[in-house]
Amino acid sequence: MNDLYLRTLRGEATERRPLWIMRQAGRYLPEYRALRAQHSFEELCASPELAAEVTMMPMERFPLDAAIVFADLMTPVAALGIDVRFDPGPVIDAPIRSSADVRKLRVPAGEEIAPEVPATLRLVKERLAGRANLIGFTGAPFSIAAYLVQGRGGKDFADLRAFLRADPVAFGELMDVLARLAAAYGIAQHHAGADAVQVFDSWAGLLSLADWEVHVKPHLVNLLEALGAAGVPRVFFANGAPHLARAHAALPSEALAVCWRSDLAALRAELGPHTGTGKALQGNLDPAYLSAGPEATARGTRELLGRVPARGHVVNLGHGITPDVPLESVAAMIEVVHAEAATSAGSPS
Amino acid sequence: MNDLYLRTLRGEATERRPLWIMRQAGRYLPEYRALRAQHSFEELCASPELAAEVTMMPMERFPLDAAIVFADLMTPVAALGIDVRFDPGPVIDAPIRSSADVRKLRVPAGEEIAPEVPATLRLVKERLAGRANLIGFTGAPFSIAAYLVQGRGGKDFADLRAFLRADPVAFGELMDVLARLAAAYGIAQHHAGADAVQVFDSWAGLLSLADWEVHVKPHLVNLLEALGAAGVPRVFFANGAPHLARAHAALPSEALAVCWRSDLAALRAELGPHTGTGKALQGNLDPAYLSAGPEATARGTRELLGRVPARGHVVNLGHGITPDVPLESVAAMIEVVHAEAATSAGSPS
Repeated sequence: MNDLYLRTLRGEATERRPLWIMRQAGRYLPEYRALRAQHSFEELCASPELAAEVTMMPMERFPLDAAIVFADLMTPVAALGIDVRFDPGPVIDAPIRSSADVRKLRVPAGEEIAPEVPATLRLVKERLAGRANLIGFTGAPFSIAAYLVQGRGGKDFADLRAFLRADPVAFGELMDVLARLAAAYGIAQHHAGADAVQVFDSWAGLLSLADWEVHVKPHLVNLLEALGAAGVPRVFFANGAPHLARAHAALPSEALAVCWRSDLAALRAELGPHTGTGKALQGNLDPAYLSAGPEATARGTRELLGRVPARGHVVNLGHGITPDVPLESVAAMIEVVHAEAATSAGSPS
Repeated sequence: MNDLYLRTLRGEATERRPLWIMRQAGRYLPEYRALRAQHSFEELCASPELAAEVTMMPMERFPLDAAIVFADLMTPVAALGIDVRFDPGPVIDAPIRSSADVRKLRVPAGEEIAPEVPATLRLVKERLAGRANLIGFTGAPFSIAAYLVQGRGGKDFADLRAFLRADPVAFGELMDVLARLAAAYGIAQHHAGADAVQVFDSWAGLLSLADWEVHVKPHLVNLLEALGAAGVPRVFFANGAPHLARAHAALPSEALAVCWRSDLAALRAELGPHTGTGKALQGNLDPAYLSAGPEATARGTRELLGRVPARGHVVNLGHGITPDVPLESVAAMIEVVHAEAATSAGSPS
């Protein structure tokens, strides 16, 4: 039984830091590329059997402490009656641009939202057989809204921001729908075996703190409180939003995960130690270290472990692992984390 | 004689806030689109006559307080012997990927760096005839390096970051070359008539504060001090880097310009008032307000003016104006800024 990840979220003393890697079931793995040669991304997501196989791929190759269900940020959106295709990122051919578009949306019951994802979780839970924790995930309302309004990914989602500036009320109604969708979807994943649910706010940093507090925060609080009330351990991940890190740390969640632009050590100093009543921190090695090879990876990982106290720290990258990363870099990162357990630096106290 | 912009940089009391708009000579202007139908972007940049015509376009249409020379961030790079093409953003077919690549680069003398830009400035200076100030610009070393290493624009410049992680020494040598290039180029523009030089750090926010302090800051300080020693009034603009705003404010420059993600009022409170010994602040209306139309623009502009004290404030957007913006939005923004002069809120004290 390996419960390192969950115990670290709780602030328990552990024999070493847990480690998993965002996008660990991805294109840097030759076995994933081989399966993708036979199936589209949509096919992999739609089939619990294939999605479970992909979810398990990194777990067979590396001694990781958590698996994360293979799905897309936009997977639950189909339940709103919105068509999403992939090219290669999500594309919405009929983006939301008016309050009338928003008012058409109805949030379905939890069991109607992407039932293939809970089905995948049940398969993976059985295959893991306790050797690692299992993480479910959902997109944060703002990041799902970003795609729904913009129609596709972009550098700074100008259409999303213009929609917010033109009609803040309709924007808020959209956020409310998406927060309720994400809550129902996350709770369904927990019931299907997810030990924790990570809320991915991939585009969290597009607004100023003042705008975030008015237009985004209330919906995030609603989502996280709904998950918490259902007993779901919550990790909030914000990408590209170092200016909001303090505000994100104050959200109701068991852990905050940040990208490489944030200073994890400074966040820990500000939050104080996590000994059960505090908050875990996850991250945040720049994935570019892994692209640069195993030597750079080992150097970067050692530096991270040296700065951030072990207790309450889930080791991870600051963003998803990229397709160019050599497998040796992943091995080097794991080796440094495991080696620390044998030294005083790895002491849980 | 309209010296509002320059006097505001100096912290003088002015009759109203100066206003110019990043990318004001751009595709939202029908006359610009008409000229682009006849000439490529490269042709417009390469010809002082055409570049001066484009620079003057927004000045003929709107009562703006500064013109900014029409050129590209990558314009000075040709002087390093590097080919840049546009598709539509800058593309480097032979990106820099090794210390050997870096060591081939030689910084030419100021007069050899993009001589068409000083030539353009001389033409514009004459045509402005004192009715607005004239701004030159250069890319910041990090943002030029971003394109040179990555080969083209991108969301998070993974290859640039991998180069930094793999070989921080070669990265530093590249930054040093680019800082010297930018300094010589900026000084040449000042000699040709630029009243101030804005250093554009379009990709400033890719690193954490700790990494920025080690790998970026020393080169920015060298660049800004070289400009300062030559008597050039300096504006440092950082895009997408609200987590570095305090550190950027401490750089040697007459003004700091920030994108819409930063809180200009909080920065002013922290810096204290600008009465000659302080620092001017420029920005930072979200250009999405302009996309949303004149009503939203007026609302957003009024809100900005209400929060940020007038003295030492150069009104601008937080990023370049986008092609979809209706001309009415620009007029609405200008109207709000000019109207303030008649009210007590516009009092310079």
